Formats: sequence, structure tokens, C-alpha cells
Amino acid sequence: MNIVLKASPIPDSAIPAYSPSGRECELFESAWTRQLPLLLKGPTGCGKTRFVTHMAAKLGLPLSTVSCHDDLAAADLTGRFLLKGGDTVWVDGPLTRAVREGGICYLDEIVEARKDVAVVLHPLTDDRRILPLERTGELLEAPPGFMLVVSYNPGYQNLLKTLKPSTRQRFVAIEFDFLPRVSEIAVVSEESGLDESRVAPLVDLAHRLRSLKGHDLEEGVSTRLLVYCASLVDNGVSVRDAVLATMIEPLTDEPDVKAALIEIADAVVRQG
Amino acid sequence: MNIVLKASPIPDSAIPAYSPSGRECELFESAWTRQLPLLLKGPTGCGKTRFVTHMAAKLGLPLSTVSCHDDLAAADLTGRFLLKGGDTVWVDGPLTRAVREGGICYLDEIVEARKDVAVVLHPLTDDRRILPLERTGELLEAPPGFMLVVSYNPGYQNLLKTLKPSTRQRFVAIEFDFLPRVSEIAVVSEESGLDESRVAPLVDLAHRLRSLKGHDLEEGVSTRLLVYCASLVDNGVSVRDAVLATMIEPLTDEPDVKAALIEIADAVVRQG
Amino acid sequence: MNIVLKASPIPDSAIPAYSPSGRECELFESAWTRQLPLLLKGPTGCGKTRFVTHMAAKLGLPLSTVSCHDDLAAADLTGRFLLKGGDTVWVDGPLTRAVREGGICYLDEIVEARKDVAVVLHPLTDDRRILPLERTGELLEAPPGFMLVVSYNPGYQNLLKTLKPSTRQRFVAIEFDFLPRVSEIAVVSEESGLDESRVAPLVDLAHRLRSLKGHDLEEGVSTRLLVYCASLVDNGVSVRDAVLATMIEPLTDEPDVKAALIEIADAVVRQG
Amino acid sequence: MNIVLKASPIPDSAIPAYSPSGRECELFESAWTRQLPLLLKGPTGCGKTRFVTHMAAKLGLPLSTVSCHDDLAAADLTGRFLLKGGDTVWVDGPLTRAVREGGICYLDEIVEARKDVAVVLHPLTDDRRILPLERTGELLEAPPGFMLVVSYNPGYQNLLKTLKPSTRQRFVAIEFDFLPRVSEIAVVSEESGLDESRVAPLVDLAHRLRSLKGHDLEEGVSTRLLVYCASLVDNGVSVRDAVLATMIEPLTDEPDVKAALIEIADAVVRQG
Amino acid sequence: MNIVLKASPIPDSAIPAYSPSGRECELFESAWTRQLPLLLKGPTGCGKTRFVTHMAAKLGLPLSTVSCHDDLAAADLTGRFLLKGGDTVWVDGPLTRAVREGGICYLDEIVEARKDVAVVLHPLTDDRRILPLERTGELLEAPPGFMLVVSYNPGYQNLLKTLKPSTRQRFVAIEFDFLPRVSEIAVVSEESGLDESRVAPLVDLAHRLRSLKGHDLEEGVSTRLLVYCASLVDNGVSVRDAVLATMIEPLTDEPDVKAALIEIADAVVRQG
Amino acid sequence: MNIVLKASPIPDSAIPAYSPSGRECELFESAWTRQLPLLLKGPTGCGKTRFVTHMAAKLGLPLSTVSCHDDLAAADLTGRFLLKGGDTVWVDGPLTRAVREGGICYLDEIVEARKDVAVVLHPLTDDRRILPLERTGELLEAPPGFMLVVSYNPGYQNLLKTLKPSTRQRFVAIEFDFLPRVSEIAVVSEESGLDESRVAPLVDLAHRLRSLKGHDLEEGVSTRLLVYCASLVDNGVSVRDAVLATMIEPLTDEPDVKAALIEIADAVVRQG
Repeated sequence: MNIVLKASPIPDSAIPAYSPSGRECELFESAWTRQLPLLLKGPTGCGKTRFVTHMAAKLGLPLSTVSCHDDLAAADLTGRFLLKGGDTVWVDGPLTRAVREGGICYLDEIVEARKDVAVVLHPLTDDRRILPLERTGELLEAPPGFMLVVSYNPGYQNLLKTLKPSTRQRFVAIEFDFLPRVSEIAVVSEESGLDESRVAPLVDLAHRLRSLKGHDLEEGVSTRLLVYCASLVDNGVSVRDAVLATMIEPLTDEPDVKAALIEIADAVVRQG
Repeated sequence: MNIVLKASPIPDSAIPAYSPSGRECELFESAWTRQLPLLLKGPTGCGKTRFVTHMAAKLGLPLSTVSCHDDLAAADLTGRFLLKGGDTVWVDGPLTRAVREGGICYLDEIVEARKDVAVVLHPLTDDRRILPLERTGELLEAPPGFMLVVSYNPGYQNLLKTLKPSTRQRFVAIEFDFLPRVSEIAVVSEESGLDESRVAPLVDLAHRLRSLKGHDLEEGVSTRLLVYCASLVDNGVSVRDAVLATMIEPLTDEPDVKAALIEIADAVVRQG
Repeated sequence: MNIVLKASPIPDSAIPAYSPSGRECELFESAWTRQLPLLLKGPTGCGKTRFVTHMAAKLGLPLSTVSCHDDLAAADLTGRFLLKGGDTVWVDGPLTRAVREGGICYLDEIVEARKDVAVVLHPLTDDRRILPLERTGELLEAPPGFMLVVSYNPGYQNLLKTLKPSTRQRFVAIEFDFLPRVSEIAVVSEESGLDESRVAPLVDLAHRLRSLKGHDLEEGVSTRLLVYCASLVDNGVSVRDAVLATMIEPLTDEPDVKAALIEIADAVVRQG
Repeated sequence: MNIVLKASPIPDSAIPAYSPSGRECELFESAWTRQLPLLLKGPTGCGKTRFVTHMAAKLGLPLSTVSCHDDLAAADLTGRFLLKGGDTVWVDGPLTRAVREGGICYLDEIVEARKDVAVVLHPLTDDRRILPLERTGELLEAPPGFMLVVSYNPGYQNLLKTLKPSTRQRFVAIEFDFLPRVSEIAVVSEESGLDESRVAPLVDLAHRLRSLKGHDLEEGVSTRLLVYCASLVDNGVSVRDAVLATMIEPLTDEPDVKAALIEIADAVVRQG
Repeated sequence: MNIVLKASPIPDSAIPAYSPSGRECELFESAWTRQLPLLLKGPTGCGKTRFVTHMAAKLGLPLSTVSCHDDLAAADLTGRFLLKGGDTVWVDGPLTRAVREGGICYLDEIVEARKDVAVVLHPLTDDRRILPLERTGELLEAPPGFMLVVSYNPGYQNLLKTLKPSTRQRFVAIEFDFLPRVSEIAVVSEESGLDESRVAPLVDLAHRLRSLKGHDLEEGVSTRLLVYCASLVDNGVSVRDAVLATMIEPLTDEPDVKAALIEIADAVVRQG
Repeated sequence: MNIVLKASPIPDSAIPAYSPSGRECELFESAWTRQLPLLLKGPTGCGKTRFVTHMAAKLGLPLSTVSCHDDLAAADLTGRFLLKGGDTVWVDGPLTRAVREGGICYLDEIVEARKDVAVVLHPLTDDRRILPLERTGELLEAPPGFMLVVSYNPGYQNLLKTLKPSTRQRFVAIEFDFLPRVSEIAVVSEESGLDESRVAPLVDLAHRLRSLKGHDLEEGVSTRLLVYCASLVDNGVSVRDAVLATMIEPLTDEPDVKAALIEIADAVVRQG
């Protein structure tokens, strides 16, 4: 069964801007039409959360976001009994609310959550599309308007924190990377208010630093940090101080690595 | 003592379709008749859950499914005391309900559950067929119409997560594998709406990728992912994009492995 | 002080059948007469639980069985405070009930329980025969009619899960093994309904498989699995299918080991 | 300040028998007189608990015994708040009761307890002799009639489970060992009812087995097991069966070690 | 959107003194203006907390400080349900209060906190600037007057305790070090009341000891310890005793290292 | 700001005796005057607790002592909500009471406490001198009459149990060692009632045994054990028995080490 899109159309002007880097928008719409759950993979700050916000607005769907962490358990998603006036009263969690009312439930950094979370998702992500609430004895069927989206950063995975194949194989998956140079300059300029000509050398520096990932740096400079940098410059901070505070200090604590990054920054920014 | 089958017969049309790959249906019926518990072994997405759903409908039995996970404890199956109006009130868990009312209780991925779960099953899986509820002091005898089915994926087992022999030796066991080629093409075509002729090369690709399991891949492509892939193609997504999003990205995060899989996919799909 | 046996004699017909393999019945009666606690050691499914059930019926004693597991704590045996109408009310656990009312308390797989359980047993298993309930401030003296029986499987023990000498040395201990061939054929035939002539080759196969224990198999085929196998055959399943589902699949997940076992099974069963 | 002994003298006939193996009775009395806490060290079943019971009766003191274990926390000794009629009510633990009312508080196997227990004992075991109850805000002074006795088995200690020097150095310490041969024969004969002439070879066997400790056996045969053995023999069990069930099976699960012990037993008992 | 500074100006005399060592004041103001979160890195006692107090007063903002530790969980920041008159009542944590009312929320030693804390900060530290309270179902938007500041000491980081890149990359970061010599002499003299001429050799000694960091010492002498030292000297303690008690004993327990430090101290102070 | 000492002077006769071994009394008074927190380092039983008791009495300050342990958490110091009549009522912990009412709060063996304890102390031990109670939303300012003293034994520290530099650097620190020979003889004689001439050889033996620390012994003989030994001798126990029970058995369980210590003891005491 297919879902008719745009049930509650939103005027284009109200949709948060998003610059696609591939065919991720078409894939998202196809997955939504076919009621398939979606998995977004990609590095920190490359725009996964922004993409989901954009698509939810475009499809006119309510969006519920849950940031996963080490202590997030299934009950944080499904709900709990709370004491009210001496009684225990059931209170829905964000996943249960989304299943009852429809819309997108987005679980950010799913690999961080406790293991029982993945299993709660299993009956929601095969052809049954159900959410059993063992504590209340309810068995909810997801309406056609419900969609599950999860994300994680493959760069962090280790032996303890991975998605089991039995979970991964329940999702259509899209890999994300940083924006192409021109798009990234445009986005950073728009978000910071700084001229594109002054943003360009900062983006070039970011590309240089991203190429060091895996060698000296655990993670490359995100687009978000570029926006921070351009904002500080736009606010009157010197380029050198802004680069140090947003593109070097947040990346490393190692004095040697920091000295090397400052050298690269000085070279690239001077050229710019 | 034998159980008379088909106490509440279900019209054939209402029974979820299932393509047997061996004599698993006969074995299930024999185990049911002789009141023996059943253990299903097999890889992710090969149809174990579907098989149990099919058999439950065929035998006219209510089915209660519990997805096991790291934090699932015995009390999640047997029940708990909850506070109601200042009193603690006992609330049955899904296993206790199934024992009281009859029907199949299916514990999916049993090895994931906490150790105390296996022991709760012991007195239910020998000739006593009893469920002692220590917290309430009750001792429930399972009625003839109760059957316990558990499953796990032998590919995941490690030193910490195994079934103890004292638990395994309480079950009649069946091993599952993926469907034969022709059956799998038929199933994928029916579930996705895509022509069998366009499904065939996708199934062939899946066989190629499954043969890599244990070398570069932890787990082969499941039938479920094949259905996802065919669904996206049927919805207008290009074969290459659909294969990437459903049969490659969900299997691996390694750039090298991914590149190799894409090469295989391009070769197989081009031939098809 | 000795206990007069048969206070509440049970007609022989109501006593569950048990085929002794040594002098375990006499030792049990002596331990009971002298008020000594008993420890049963032996592999999975060799009849320890059945033996205790038999002796309890023979001696006319109520029997309370607790299956121990990783999370079983002393309070699960002794009791807890529960909330009732706003008050905390003490509720006896199964051990406390047995101490108050007499009879056999049987703790199955005692080494699985948490460490505090063993220590609760200490004052009950020396000449004091007392159960101090620290939470309520009570100090219960076990009546002459109370007996403690525990069991474990020496094959499982590891560094983390053993009985401390200070606990072991409080019990009279009996080691169990599987039944002799003729007795086992008789038992399996009676429990499954299958002719002894058809049971015999299955028992012979079990002996072959038991001899592999420690090499390829963690544990040998239990008598229980033999009963399962004979039951399926009696129900019309082919011998080969029944052997695979009850005497091979429950023992191993290793393809190589499984292939070897099938070869042995084919040879033994064909001869039979 | 010294305590006047025998405040509530007990007739000698009511004092549990105890055969001293050294000057432990005099040391106990001196420690009591000088209000010093006492630490008893020694192997399983050598009579430490019996000794404390004997001395408590001899000195006319109430005795409160706590068996320590992995989960025993300070609050189990000092007390807890419990819910009663909606309020939290403080309930003294056994240590607090002993401090309030005087008498001996005996903590058996103290190294098993959680680390916070040792620290609760610190202000009770220096010249302050106080027990601060942080939860209630009380600060109890131990009366002259309070004495703390603790015990442990040095044979079990490992890196995780030891008494810290800051705790050990707060006690007068006595080491225990098994009774001399003649005393042990007398004790076992009296407790089991078996003639001394028939007990003697059993005690000789125990000495042989104790000499194997540290080589093949973790712990030697306790006097308690000797009493068990003699009791079974007195009840009509053959010497060979009784020795196997009480002096061999409780000591080891290793088939090789067991075979060696049986050989030793056959040799020693035959001579006897 | 920029924030108008000095909404509630504070007279300069009420602002805690702070001697900047670089452009940290300008960067703080820029981050505040642009609503960017701030990360302060630096060694123990170099003045990070003092800096935040200074800036909060200067900008006329309320300041809420939370010292993070191993057991600090997200709920300690966001809030909890507490029992009041039988009902569960929500009570805001310090982060929630700061988001509701505006002002600076300063999380000191953020890497010490539990992992779920970092994730609670994620939606507050990107362009959404929201705090979802899953337990109450509220979604708070941070007002323009809210600013998040966190700090940690890079010298402590280890494999278990680090900020994930996905968290670090959400902050503008400033590194701190100890004050230059002249400023430090001035600060120590003012805070202790001791003449600058007598403070100078103490500061020189501190520089000597700081240069040993990483070799014999885990951490250099903080400005705080210098103030302690000068205070004791000002109070009449001899320089040697004061140096030992404040600049040597707090740094090490190793007798060899201590002897070496005393030698250095004697040399430097004597020269002074 | 300095504190006027002796607000509530105590007659000298009521001050517990203390024999200083250095300038620790002057340093304590200076730290008190300047409102600096104090850290006492030293081995077991060398008199740290006695010293604090002495100084508190001398300065006329109330003293609140908390023995830290593995499970001591910040809430044990600051306070908790307890249920009273259905409501949760806040109950101050000992640290909070000391901050509200003034006086010395002494945390003995601080390194044993949980990590969150150290962090609670941070805002109390810098120039803010505040105690934020996050659970109640209070922020207490320590009055001039509040002083924090902590202690630990450097001999126990390991990788898991140390004070972080960021905590250590908040304290003026004093190291303790055992008393000089003459003072120790005087103290032991006074506390035990035994003549100095008979105490002298015991103290000499203690010096011999202390010199073995780090080789065969984890910790040397404390002054407390010397007092125990002299007390038993004064009570009529032979010197050899008393030495064994108080200066050898409490130090070691190793038979070889014990034999060596007995030899040393026999030699030293015989000379004496």
C-alpha cells in the first residue's frame, strides 16, 4: 500500500533549507511511500538532523527526535508507569506517541542506546509494523503515516557499540558526506552573514583539515564549526582567533597536533 | 497425551502465506501434538517469525511474541507487582498469560535475554510443564493447549551469549536457511509487486553476497532486504540506487568492502 | 535425633516412578533420618529432579523446588517486604515457608545463584539448623521434618561459578550419571509409548554421542532428549528427522560437528 | 576499665561443649575484659562458630551472629528505613541492636561483606567505641558489655577479598586449626553416636586428606564432615559409601582426584 | 540574531577581579552575542571558574554552576519526578531552570559526567537551541539570554573519559594556561595579603615545579596553592613549612619525588 | 578574614591528650585562621583521628566525623529526600549540617569514597566556600566557623583509588608518621596501664616490624596494636601470647612470614 504524499502541504517558504548532495530526497520519499524504515549514516555535523527536519516539513509530517545515549532504555521510548495520586499511571514515550498519532520518529545516534532499544524496533520494522507494549499488554499497529528514521556515525563504531545485523537489515540505508565546496560556501555564508568571498578560505581550510581524519584527527571539521567560525569573524573576531577557537581547539588537545594545525591554518588562510 | 488439532480452525485464506523449505511444518505439528517445546535456529530474516505466525494460524492458536534483549529479565515474562491505589497488584507477564490461557508463546532471539529467563523456562520444558511464580506463591500447570517456541541466530553466539546445554536439551530443534532460488523469487515478487523477471537478478545478486558471509560480511542479505530493494525499484528508484540502499549500505560500513560489493552488484545486475 | 519416616504415607501407585542407578535412595533416607543436608551432582537431564520428586513422595514430604539463576538472591529465598495498603508487609520466600512448615526445599543448579544465597544456607546446614531473617529480626529453627537438598552440574563449573568449600563441606553428596542401557530403554519406551525394540537403537546412538562429550560436544544426549526422539517417532516422524531434531540440532551449531554426528547417527540407526 | 565477668552466670551444663586446642579461651576472656575486638582466623569447619557460642554462654552474654556475603552492606548491619503506614520508620540492624543492648556481635566470614561494612566497624574498634548512624543522625556509644568478634578463612583470600590493614589492625587475632587427633575422635564420637574405635580410622583418613590441601584439594576435610560420615555409618550405611558421600564427593568434582582419594580411603579404612 | 549586552549592568566594583591572559574576554562576548556555546580547556586551578564568574557579572547574567562527577546523570541537570503528598511532582534541574529563565549554565569538568549528559546538550548546542524533556513531554526553546559554558582539564582525559567529537564540535573552545609571572605575583599578593616581594620567590618556585609536570608530577602547582602558601606565610608560618604543606605535600606521595621537590624548594626560596 | 580562636574555650583537662610529632598543631591553627581546608596523610593507626579530635577540642569546635567507604556517595554527605507521611522530606547529611552550623567536618579515608564526593567538596574548598544542594535548589555559604579536614593513607593508593590533582590541590597538606620512641612508650604505657619498662621492648619490637614494611608486610604495627598488646600483658597474658595475638596475627596470614616474625619477636622480647 502506498501513502498519498502531501496530506498536509506546507508552504515552501516554511520548509527549512537543505542542499542535497545526492539522491537522498528521492530515496526518503520512496521509503516513505513504501512504508520502509530508514537508516542515515554519516559523520558529525554533516547535516543528517537538518535533512530529517527538511523532509518532515516537506512531507507535512510531525517530527519527534530522540537523541540516544548510553542509558537510553526501551522504556524511555515506549513509556513508563508513573505514580499519580497513589496510582501507577502509564505515560507514553516518544516512540509510542509517534506510533499512535503518526509522523516521523527520529532516533539520533541509535548505536549509543542500550541494546533493548534495538529489539523494541524489530516488530516495527518488518511487515508486522507493530509495537507491543508488554507492560500495558497493548499491541499497537503503526498507521500508514508512521515512519521510523534512525542515524549513526560509522566512524565511532567499536566492538561494544554496533548495530547487530539483525537490526541493520531492517532498514533502507543512505550514507551522507559533507557538502560539495560551492554548496558549503553558500550554506556557511547564509547562516553566518559573512560574505562568500571571506567564507571561501575557511571552507578550503576545512577541506584540508578533513583530509587529516584518521591520521591525526578523530573527526574532520563539521559544517557547524565552519558556521561558528564565520559567525565570530562576522562579529569582529580576527580570522586567526576565530579559526583557533572553532576549527582547532574543538578538534584536539594534543600540543603537537595543535601546532601542526595552526601552521596549516596560517598557510591556507594567508593564501585566502 | 495428544492434542486434537484445529480446535478453532481458521479459513485457509486467513493464514499468512509461508513457503516451507523442508519438513518444518510436520515437525512443528508433531511437537505440538506431543506437547514438546520447539527451538528454531537460523540467520536473520530467513523467515522464522513468519513460520511461527503461519503455524499458529494454521493450528488455530493465539500467538504471543516476545523479542528478547539484554535487559529482558524473568519478571518481564512472568509478571510484576505494580502499585495501584497504594497497594501492590500482581500483573501477569506474556508468558504467564500464555500459560494461563493456552496458545503459543514465542521468545525471539532467546540468547539475548538475561540468564534468569532460561531458568524460568526449565520447569515448563520438562515433563512437569509447570510455571512457579515465586513472587505470588502460585504454581501454574500449563494446559495441553500451551506450547513454547524459542529462536536464536547461531551466527551471533559468543562466549557470553549462548544457551546452556541444560536449556538447549529441553527443546526439539529445527535449523532454517534461506529459501531456494525459485521460491525466493516468487516470494519477493509477490511482496514487492515487481515482476519476477526483474526480481530474478536481485535474488541472484543476493546469493552472490550471501556466499561472502564469514569473509567480508558478518551476515548475508536477508529475504527482507530483497523485498525492500524490489519495492524501491517498483516505486521508480533506479536498480543501482535501490541495490546500494538496501543490499550494500545495510551490510557494511567499510569503504573497501563497500567498493567490492558495488563492483559485484554492477556485474550481476548488468548481466540480469 | 532420628525422624520417624512415613508420617504421611503415600500409596505406592502415587509415587512417581524412579529407576535407581546405585544406592542413592538409601543414602537419601539416611541423610533425612540424621537431618543432614544433601547435595546432588550430575549432568543435565540425568534425573536429579525426578529423583528428588520420587523421594519426597516416598517419604510423604511436601516438596518445594527453586530453579536457581544468575539473579536469584537470598531475598528470593527468604522473603521480602511488599507494599500493601501503604504498609510494608513481609512475605515469606520458598525457603522460609519450607523451614516454617517442614518438608524438602530443593534448590536446583545452586551454583547459578548469587553468592549471598550460599551464605543464607550456612546456619541451616550446621548443627544450629537455624534461619535468621535479618530483615524481620526473626530467628527460625528448622523443625525435624525440614530437609535441604541442592544440586548442580559439575560440568559447568568455572572460576566464577563454583561452590565455596565452606558451603560444599556442609552437605552429604551423591554423584549421578545416566541410567544403565537396559533401564534407560525401559524408561524411554514407557515415557514415549514407542516399542523397546525401536527405542534400543536410539539409546545405543545416545551412548555413542555421550562418549564424544569433552571432545566435540559440551554435554551428552540426555534421557529427556531420548524421550523426545522416541515420542516424535511414535507420532509418525521418520527416525532420521527425529534424531536430527532431538539428538543433533540441540547439541551443536557447528556445521562440521553436525555433519559428523549425522554420519554416526546414520550408521548406528541403520544397524539398529 | 575492666568488665566484671559472669554478670548473668549460666550453669555449666547449659554451656555448649568446646574442646580448646590452645589458649584461645584465656585470650577471649582477656580481650573481653579489656574491651578489645577479636578476629578469629581458620579453615572451614574447624569450630570457630562453636567457639564463639561456647564463650558467649560461658560469659553469660547474648550472641548475635551475622553470616557475611557478597551483598551484605553496612545498612544490613546498622539498619534501614522501612515504609510503615506511609511513613519511613527506622529499624535497627543486628549490629545496632547489639550496641544498644550489649552482648557479642559475631560477623562470620567478614571478608565476604561489602567494603562499607569494614568502615562501619572502624569507630567501634578504636578507643572511641562509637557507632554513628548517619541516616538517623544518632551516635551510639557501645556499653562496656558490647564485644565485636569477626572471623574469616585466610585460605580464601584473594586480591579482591581481603581485610585492609587499617581494619585488621583494629583486632586482637587468634588463629585456629583442626583439633588434635584424640580430641577430634572424642568430639566426632559424641556428636555422631558412633563408637570411638570405629571413629578413629575415619579421623585418620581425614588427616591423610588434609595433608593433600593445596596440592589436589582446595580445602581439607572438616570436623563437620567427619561427624556426617560417622552419623551415616551409625545409621547403617557402609563405611565405604559413607566416606564417598561425606569425605570425597564434597571435596572434589575431578574424576582423577576422586579416584586417587578413593584409593587412599580404601587403604586407610581397610587398615582401620 | 544578536543579543544586546548589559541588559542589567552591574557596577564595575561588584565584578569579581579577573586578570586576562589573552583575548578570552572578547571571545566570550562574541560567543554570547552570537548565541554559541563555549568550551573552556585548561589545568587545575588556572582560573576557569573565576573567569566564568567574572564574565557573568560583567554581562549582568545569572550564573548557575554544576560540578560534574562520575554519577551525574542527565536527570540531575534536567529534573526529576519527586513524591509530594502521594503524587509525583516534576522538579526542574539546574539546566532546565537556566533554559527557562535565561543566564549562563556552567558545567564544570564535563568529561566526568555520565554519557547521557553530553547527549542532553546536543539539541541545545546546534541551531535548534532546544531542550526536550522526555519525561514531561515538554520541549523548551532556549531564550536569547541563555548560554551554555562547559569546561574540562585535557590533562586528565583517558580512553574512557573523553568528549566525543560529536559533542566537542558543538562548542567554541578556548584554552587556558597559568597567568604570566607578573600578573600571578600581583594576584597572589592581593589574595593573601603578603608583600609582592615575598610572593615573588614563591611564584618562581611554582614555575620550577610546573616545568616538572609530565615527568615526576601529574599536575603543576596551581595559583590557588600559591595563595594558600602566601596566606600561611602571612599568618606567621615559616616559608619552609608553608611551602612543604602547600606546594609539595599536595602534589605527591612518593618519598623520592618529595625529597627532590624539597631540594628544589630550598634552593629557589633561599635565592629568593 | 581571620577567625578569632577559642570562641568557646574548653578547659585543658577536657582536651584529649595528644603528643605532637612536629608542627602539625601550628599548621592546623593557621589553616583554621585562614579558612583553608586541610588534608592529613599517614599510615594506619598513627593518630590522625586522635589529632583532629584534639584540635577540635582545643579550638572549641564541634566535630563531625565521617568514615568514607566504597559506597559512600555525595548524597550520604549532603542529604536525601525521605518519605514522611507520604511526602518526600529533605534530611541534611553530616556535611550539610556542619556547613549550616559551623565546626569541623572530618572525612576519614577520603580516597575510599565514590568519585562524586570529591566534586561536592570542590566549591567548598576554593574561595567560594559554598555548598550547592542541587536536589533542594539551595546554595549554602560556609560560615567562617566551618572547616573541612580530610585524611587518607598514601600506602593504599592504587590506580583506581587516588585523589585527582584537581581535588588534592585544594588542601593544605600535612604528613604524619609514628611517634618517636620515647613519646610512643609514654603513650602506650598510659593507655594500657603497663609500666614503661615493660612497654619499652614492645615498642622496640614494633620498630623492627615497621622496618619490614614494603618487603614482607603491607603495613607496620600501629600504636593502637601496641596498646592492645600492653593491655593484654597488663591483664595477665604472657608476653609471647600477647605479641602473637596483637603484633603478628593481625599483620599477616602467610605461614612463612609469620614464622619469621615470631623469630624476630622472640629475639627482641628476650633481650628486653
